[in-house]
Amino acid sequence: MASLSCSADQLAPFLGPNTTNAAAAAEYICNQFTAVSDRFTDTGYAIDTTYLLFSAYLVFSMQLGFAMLCAGSVRAKNTMNIMLTNVLDAAAGGLFYYLFGFAFAFGGPSNGFIGKHFFGLKQIPSSSFDYSNFLYQWAFAIAAAGITSGSIAERTQFVAYLIYSSFLTGFVYPVVSHWFWSADGWASASNTGNLLFGSGVIDFAGSGVVHMVGGIAGLYGALVEGPRIGRFDRTGRSVALRGHSASLVVLGTFLLWFGWYGFNPGSFNKIFVTYNVGNQPYYGQWSAVGRTAVTTTLAGCTAALTTLFGKRILSGHWNVTDVCNGLLGGFAAITSGCSVVEPWAAIICGFVAALVLIGCNMLAEKVKFDDPLEAAQLHGGCGAWGVIFTALFAAEKYVNEVYPIPGKSTRPYGLFMGGGGRLLAAHVIQVLVILGWVSATMGPLFFILHKLKLLRISAEDETAGMDMTRHGGFAYVYHDEEDSNKNSIPMRKIEPAGSN
Amino acid sequence: MASLSCSADQLAPFLGPNTTNAAAAAEYICNQFTAVSDRFTDTGYAIDTTYLLFSAYLVFSMQLGFAMLCAGSVRAKNTMNIMLTNVLDAAAGGLFYYLFGFAFAFGGPSNGFIGKHFFGLKQIPSSSFDYSNFLYQWAFAIAAAGITSGSIAERTQFVAYLIYSSFLTGFVYPVVSHWFWSADGWASASNTGNLLFGSGVIDFAGSGVVHMVGGIAGLYGALVEGPRIGRFDRTGRSVALRGHSASLVVLGTFLLWFGWYGFNPGSFNKIFVTYNVGNQPYYGQWSAVGRTAVTTTLAGCTAALTTLFGKRILSGHWNVTDVCNGLLGGFAAITSGCSVVEPWAAIICGFVAALVLIGCNMLAEKVKFDDPLEAAQLHGGCGAWGVIFTALFAAEKYVNEVYPIPGKSTRPYGLFMGGGGRLLAAHVIQVLVILGWVSATMGPLFFILHKLKLLRISAEDETAGMDMTRHGGFAYVYHDEEDSNKNSIPMRKIEPAGSN
Amino acid sequence: MASLSCSADQLAPFLGPNTTNAAAAAEYICNQFTAVSDRFTDTGYAIDTTYLLFSAYLVFSMQLGFAMLCAGSVRAKNTMNIMLTNVLDAAAGGLFYYLFGFAFAFGGPSNGFIGKHFFGLKQIPSSSFDYSNFLYQWAFAIAAAGITSGSIAERTQFVAYLIYSSFLTGFVYPVVSHWFWSADGWASASNTGNLLFGSGVIDFAGSGVVHMVGGIAGLYGALVEGPRIGRFDRTGRSVALRGHSASLVVLGTFLLWFGWYGFNPGSFNKIFVTYNVGNQPYYGQWSAVGRTAVTTTLAGCTAALTTLFGKRILSGHWNVTDVCNGLLGGFAAITSGCSVVEPWAAIICGFVAALVLIGCNMLAEKVKFDDPLEAAQLHGGCGAWGVIFTALFAAEKYVNEVYPIPGKSTRPYGLFMGGGGRLLAAHVIQVLVILGWVSATMGPLFFILHKLKLLRISAEDETAGMDMTRHGGFAYVYHDEEDSNKNSIPMRKIEPAGSN
Repeated sequence: MASLSCSADQLAPFLGPNTTNAAAAAEYICNQFTAVSDRFTDTGYAIDTTYLLFSAYLVFSMQLGFAMLCAGSVRAKNTMNIMLTNVLDAAAGGLFYYLFGFAFAFGGPSNGFIGKHFFGLKQIPSSSFDYSNFLYQWAFAIAAAGITSGSIAERTQFVAYLIYSSFLTGFVYPVVSHWFWSADGWASASNTGNLLFGSGVIDFAGSGVVHMVGGIAGLYGALVEGPRIGRFDRTGRSVALRGHSASLVVLGTFLLWFGWYGFNPGSFNKIFVTYNVGNQPYYGQWSAVGRTAVTTTLAGCTAALTTLFGKRILSGHWNVTDVCNGLLGGFAAITSGCSVVEPWAAIICGFVAALVLIGCNMLAEKVKFDDPLEAAQLHGGCGAWGVIFTALFAAEKYVNEVYPIPGKSTRPYGLFMGGGGRLLAAHVIQVLVILGWVSATMGPLFFILHKLKLLRISAEDETAGMDMTRHGGFAYVYHDEEDSNKNSIPMRKIEPAGSN
Repeated sequence: MASLSCSADQLAPFLGPNTTNAAAAAEYICNQFTAVSDRFTDTGYAIDTTYLLFSAYLVFSMQLGFAMLCAGSVRAKNTMNIMLTNVLDAAAGGLFYYLFGFAFAFGGPSNGFIGKHFFGLKQIPSSSFDYSNFLYQWAFAIAAAGITSGSIAERTQFVAYLIYSSFLTGFVYPVVSHWFWSADGWASASNTGNLLFGSGVIDFAGSGVVHMVGGIAGLYGALVEGPRIGRFDRTGRSVALRGHSASLVVLGTFLLWFGWYGFNPGSFNKIFVTYNVGNQPYYGQWSAVGRTAVTTTLAGCTAALTTLFGKRILSGHWNVTDVCNGLLGGFAAITSGCSVVEPWAAIICGFVAALVLIGCNMLAEKVKFDDPLEAAQLHGGCGAWGVIFTALFAAEKYVNEVYPIPGKSTRPYGLFMGGGGRLLAAHVIQVLVILGWVSATMGPLFFILHKLKLLRISAEDETAGMDMTRHGGFAYVYHDEEDSNKNSIPMRKIEPAGSN
Repeated sequence: MASLSCSADQLAPFLGPNTTNAAAAAEYICNQFTAVSDRFTDTGYAIDTTYLLFSAYLVFSMQLGFAMLCAGSVRAKNTMNIMLTNVLDAAAGGLFYYLFGFAFAFGGPSNGFIGKHFFGLKQIPSSSFDYSNFLYQWAFAIAAAGITSGSIAERTQFVAYLIYSSFLTGFVYPVVSHWFWSADGWASASNTGNLLFGSGVIDFAGSGVVHMVGGIAGLYGALVEGPRIGRFDRTGRSVALRGHSASLVVLGTFLLWFGWYGFNPGSFNKIFVTYNVGNQPYYGQWSAVGRTAVTTTLAGCTAALTTLFGKRILSGHWNVTDVCNGLLGGFAAITSGCSVVEPWAAIICGFVAALVLIGCNMLAEKVKFDDPLEAAQLHGGCGAWGVIFTALFAAEKYVNEVYPIPGKSTRPYGLFMGGGGRLLAAHVIQVLVILGWVSATMGPLFFILHKLKLLRISAEDETAGMDMTRHGGFAYVYHDEEDSNKNSIPMRKIEPAGSN
């Protein structure tokens, strides 16, 4: 394809000495082309910002999805509590990510460990970041916190929640995203001057950076707290503490699916990028964005179907909430490689993710680990599988299109695709380092909160439900008190405990 | 307006022989313009893909809308079942549409009956289709399956559901969409070399292709299964089996409304298309897209209001669920003509659609036809009205802008707008052919499933509710068991009657 | 930056007399650039329409948010009623805004008081308005009506509701939007020939135009109707009439948050606008759009956190529904200034908004004012604060970028930012004029309805609930009737049948 690069120095000689002022004519013409080129740059900003902002809104809608999924998955008596944590993930996350988080994550130029500019959005807009980037990254940060709140649901003091959520959104998560996503990060695939194993980590939308971080944080929280009262009976047998509304679970799952189209395809940040591939005219990032939406869809669909039949064999039921979790496990897994694998590989990714989740859940039952949302298993387990999957199936062509290295024609890609083991080595490091970092930060935090008796609520409160004891009342009132009295069908009271 | 078409052959003579190298100068300049033109093409891909993908996400959100609408419209004891079918419409649909469906629908070059390329997305991206097109069409395919699941709710075996849903999404629906939407389709308005009645069918977003197909499939399912137990009492009197949550119905309806803005305006696939109409500068598809959103809105609003007052007169109530169904009937009807009719005509469309739905529902009561979601009446009946409506009210100007025929200045349009009867003839054929095709495929399928005793659940299961017997438990648990024991405040039972 | 403005008159002399036909050559070349420029204009329409339509869809989703928020905030026995009003706000609003509303608001050229063209979308698309603008403004109009329906919930006759809603959407609100948003409006910041106090009102997305109008209308409705039965006991003590579902409240709140990203950033209408600021290349409205999303987010987040701790101190609970209302109060307040204030100022805005809401609610309790949704306090009170806030904190740079006056380099901006008192004077006028206009129109309307006994339902109906008496039945049926009749000892089980 022709390239837009008018040069007066090249054009003027063609006009030659007989032209009255060849240099001026050529410059006049080329200046027009410069203006055209500038206008294309502006066009790109307008298109890319539209694309990124609406993607950010979609990612934000996942917070609603988490809230509904969590609400439906807990018992009715803790609904107010869990929803409040979801609202506050977003709200406290907004302030902390504005003050510190975005700076720690992307504040360049910086070292490989942590960013050091852009506190309180100072210097924004810069040449590399605009407000839309902040908004998009904030929506990611609160997703990580949202994952964790599921693991420790139904038994955590609200103050403990406020502390860990702020710490996670404002520090732990931003540092991880700096390592793998910032151009300065020590393991980033964009740190082209200094690539880990000559490859760097390709964690496109964050199976590791977001899902493993949230899931492992949840793992430590749930481990330190221990299971909910009644979750395992005296003989150690597992007792399902069913969530109170499957409708809310399905609502939340579909909303997360919807929002994932912002999470994965949106992670390109820009859509108006032309890929300069000789034999393919009019080919660019728009196609990769669409492919990413397709791989995401196929991984989730396959995981849902695998879970449907897998759980049917294991439990004898066709269970919709299990299918929902399987679906989400497929999404969590494909999040890392969604932009660089073929659609058929996404089907493999989803199939294995469903098995990983079933396996993790079996293991959790065995070791009496209680995570009301299966968040540690789902986001931690499937997330880790996703990181490894990418290192196995990343396609050469897509890796080079999405993560081009200036002046180089190729870079390491998936082991099974013939790309060698360097990407895999980097990804194994990623899994270990995330495990280590979250263990070193969130583990002690939860332990200290536990020691200070700030972590777990009292047994009385847990039995009564937190909504009554801490949040002003039960979430639902389906019948008027006066009515129920009249009807002689006694219904529960709704006042906080102690008020009568 | 000036057109961007630099020709060195035209420019060089103006520079003339005194210019040192007029040919080279002209070519140099024109090459720059070629680069500019290429860049505009790239710009178009970036804009159109953004537009199409976000439209696809909106259409996908309709699946959540269907899930909530269906859940709220059935009795609580079948909530898990119906929601699972909705999740699986999307999931199984994803795999089948990837493997076969998209190929059958759009795999060109092909014959007029069925497509034969693009299996498993092979050859995608091609010059005519990118991944975004697949995603958009997949979201349509699962909508058709979602419609049908409403008709046969509360009494269908889950395995039967898996079979018909895959068959519908993977084969029946794709073939219909090939006929009317593929450039190769025998009745397509884009098959400009060989237009049916010199007109072809203008079913813009699928009142026929999607809604009639889903609705008629549901008609056969509900006919073969027969009414739910208790739906008509011994004397044959109709007994309303109220859905368990009007909140979910309203939630689902609004989500469908929201998603319809992806369904109808999104069906242009591209927004960056200039209409070359002499006296209107800067006029193009963006305006038609907006107009389509407006006609869609007005048809739905009018149908809602008509239903409100119509049902008030008939039943004496102001009924929100009826209004919701009326609204959706208006949308289903306008879906065919939304891009080619005037806003005022959309009001007529919605008004009649509400009456059609009321009439179909009266007829259904009379013949003891039981469709828990009114899906056959709504999508089948109002869909058919929409197809005919388009043939009556399609405006000349819009038909020629949206469906231009190269080298021709006009094509048949609405009968009442002075466009003759050829479009109407084509649309009558469409109604009959869809009726015939779905009857010939889904009718036998449901009948065979019925004969194999795979279709309807047992009377015991139906009375108990499918959630308890097949899906692992009731969807809702609003009160802890241990609590109700302790409080000696007896709570209502949810178990099937007589089980202890 | 170079500007795209090829002039054959300038270019031809450079080519000079030796060129065979310098004029023709120059014209040929410049015509190409004209074509390029036209194509950029088309590009702008495609981008801006995409941006505006998807923003409109988001704003529309707020109607779903209102419906869920309202439903969850009322008692279960009035759920059908309140949801029907929300559906009809959108539906009746669609017709009335099409027939009159848009014309009254934006039908130019007109006087400063009311528009007088575009009835029934005549003359649309015009050079200034396309269908997408209508759709966007319709979504705003129905939001105003939605606010009011909250204030008078649980005690208003349905017919009264239909009357006031049509009047508000079709006349009262459009006139206000004409004053402040139409280029002809007497107080509009865009009426650059005749600016109020040389400044005009900067109410970007409508803290005054939408929220105050809806809130004050609700204030009059709730005042004329008086409190719900039981809201204040015989001794005058306030008795909370708790809403029936906190899950619906949180769902609605998050949907409103989601939709607010269409409401505030979308109010730019266009995103592809370059700001000609000398030292900032590639800087334009896309950055301002992103900043607006950020200020909106920060104001809401801060208000939520302020409410969390404020109410904890006052009531001893961590209350999620209070936090939701606080959040929405922050959004209502920032809506006016979101595009022209710094992110740090948005934090101040949200902080004060939370206090304003708490104060208004205390006052309401004191004077026995009953607004089931706190809509008058939230949208009226926080909206008014938002209008004043903008006049205090609007930044010079942003005011001049977003509201440029042709030929002038600056205009009045925030008092605390050094911009003088003229913007504040205009905004005080805005608050007073909106208060006066809504008092003069909606006040008498509610009073007349009251006198005609069309406003409030009977005490019997109110006690029984409107769903039973007017809307065909209760919104929820969680248990089959036949089951509960048969079982004399109602008790609830959750296991699948057969497990005991």
